[in-house]
Amino acid sequence: MVPPSRPLALTLGDPAGIGPQLTAEAWHKLRHSEEGAFFWLGDPRLVEAAVPITLIKTPEEAGAVFANSLPILQVLCEADVTPGQPDPRNAAATISSIRLAVEYALAGRAGGLVTNPIAKHVLAAAGFRYPGHTEFLAALCGMTGEEIMMLVSPQLRVVPVTVHVSLRKALETLTTDRIVSVAETANAALKRDFGIESPRLAIAGLNPHAGEQGLMGEEEITIIRPAIERLHALGINCQGPFPPDTMFSATARPNYDAAICMYHDQALIPLKTLDMAEGVNVTLGLPIIRTSPDHGTAFDIAGPVTETCRADVSSLLAAIGLADGMSAYREGKRP
Amino acid sequence: MVPPSRPLALTLGDPAGIGPQLTAEAWHKLRHSEEGAFFWLGDPRLVEAAVPITLIKTPEEAGAVFANSLPILQVLCEADVTPGQPDPRNAAATISSIRLAVEYALAGRAGGLVTNPIAKHVLAAAGFRYPGHTEFLAALCGMTGEEIMMLVSPQLRVVPVTVHVSLRKALETLTTDRIVSVAETANAALKRDFGIESPRLAIAGLNPHAGEQGLMGEEEITIIRPAIERLHALGINCQGPFPPDTMFSATARPNYDAAICMYHDQALIPLKTLDMAEGVNVTLGLPIIRTSPDHGTAFDIAGPVTETCRADVSSLLAAIGLADGMSAYREGKRP
Repeated sequence: MVPPSRPLALTLGDPAGIGPQLTAEAWHKLRHSEEGAFFWLGDPRLVEAAVPITLIKTPEEAGAVFANSLPILQVLCEADVTPGQPDPRNAAATISSIRLAVEYALAGRAGGLVTNPIAKHVLAAAGFRYPGHTEFLAALCGMTGEEIMMLVSPQLRVVPVTVHVSLRKALETLTTDRIVSVAETANAALKRDFGIESPRLAIAGLNPHAGEQGLMGEEEITIIRPAIERLHALGINCQGPFPPDTMFSATARPNYDAAICMYHDQALIPLKTLDMAEGVNVTLGLPIIRTSPDHGTAFDIAGPVTETCRADVSSLLAAIGLADGMSAYREGKRP
Repeated sequence: MVPPSRPLALTLGDPAGIGPQLTAEAWHKLRHSEEGAFFWLGDPRLVEAAVPITLIKTPEEAGAVFANSLPILQVLCEADVTPGQPDPRNAAATISSIRLAVEYALAGRAGGLVTNPIAKHVLAAAGFRYPGHTEFLAALCGMTGEEIMMLVSPQLRVVPVTVHVSLRKALETLTTDRIVSVAETANAALKRDFGIESPRLAIAGLNPHAGEQGLMGEEEITIIRPAIERLHALGINCQGPFPPDTMFSATARPNYDAAICMYHDQALIPLKTLDMAEGVNVTLGLPIIRTSPDHGTAFDIAGPVTETCRADVSSLLAAIGLADGMSAYREGKRP
């Protein structure tokens, strides 16, 4: 008999942002569905009375109550929470929620993490020293530097080789080794967590027209082609370097399962141009599954935690659905 | 009485490419329309008997015959033309066609130029020393360095500040002066040739998240913001610098008339991701109107010149329509 899927762990995020509201709305939308059961590592005092909740002590209790109430594994905020007004005194709760979620995922008691948005400046004011979620998660898993970012939307999967650095720094730090390692990680994840038997990777060029044989830049010749050759030697199905401007067109997209991009905006521009609402940020290369909605705390529209809110829940729903699907593939519950 | 619009001049392009075929198909589609009358500066011997043609001696004859036959102002190829097999001996005809079209446009006898695709390597083999059409046109107008490129699709207008150079070189050559000058040219053209009374320009950042207050790159602070301040002082309605990944989304696009982009792919990725088939390349900053389909010679699918062809005529039709509209605005025939 196939055991029931493990629930996903949703983190608190910034309690003054839209994360708590979206979590309640996502629960409301998913409570009667077959998939996507989760529990929230959050503060029950934030939730309006209209939303039924159940306080749980272990992740294992979540599945049985999910259809009737939002399961909450309690992580209390130190200061009162006013929607839209972040408070560094609550950074500890935000961080603690992430730590607990990682522990449950590493222990196999949660199917994966879906992280609600945090505000870096709020956490930094409380002494948090990581540039963002992803680096913190890698550190918690003891795998700093192994993490890579994939963005997934209904129309496109993209993986930037260089991420949150200036464009100048991206040019300086782009190496054959890094491209090979990112493509290998992406390839392995597409097989294991996305059910793609033989992933097809499209490797982007860096320069206009992919350099046009060196007329407009040498990196395709000196850095990217050698990476493609090494990937071929590793048996990875990849092609390129492609001219960056045409490789994301409607006719090109069906030819690959993921695009390996040389810098942040080369990956993010096509994804967000096509679809702002349903993008999901996925961390690959770690032992745990982690997805995240592709938006921020949106303090300006944060409000009370009811079953509906002004913010668009699409991205969180997509993040939950994707984490659930990845977990099912990894557990062998999908073919 | 409003005089009839001047016809557009379509150039030969590479006679072995898809230009001649697309020209015949465009004529077939436009012959009974109110707008978009043109003549072809090409070789009548390339045209199959099924396509009715009239040899004309002056642009002024084109309008009267356009409904019944493709007006051709003869430019003869030296060597026999085999579709798909370019021949440097025909470079002279390709170049001569462009020269003549510019002369007619400068003299006010053509409403503007629509250029068919050329193959740089074929022209280069015959001694042509320009990187492309645009630079050659600027030289013919005596305005080298004044030309800027705008790409237009149904959903977006983008203007790259740096164009056909490596990404590294784009970073090196990006200056406040250049951004100001490109934005001024774009602003003037949107008023004069696109009928937009008070154009709204969106100025892109260069770095991820537009640099995030200098955390990921300084150019927004040192180069781009000063340009925006100077543009404001000139009375130009512009905003930015915007994070490049979100500014082309469906919700952001309606907020501006053109995006001023810092490098080639920042402009071209969103445009071609949204719409590969109907993009039009427009040259601004010259005294003449010039548009061009946003595709190449496509030697691999070139065939006989009939009224239909395997290539997609959408981009050429869009280029003709746009040149015609720009000409009408400039002549004051549109409000």
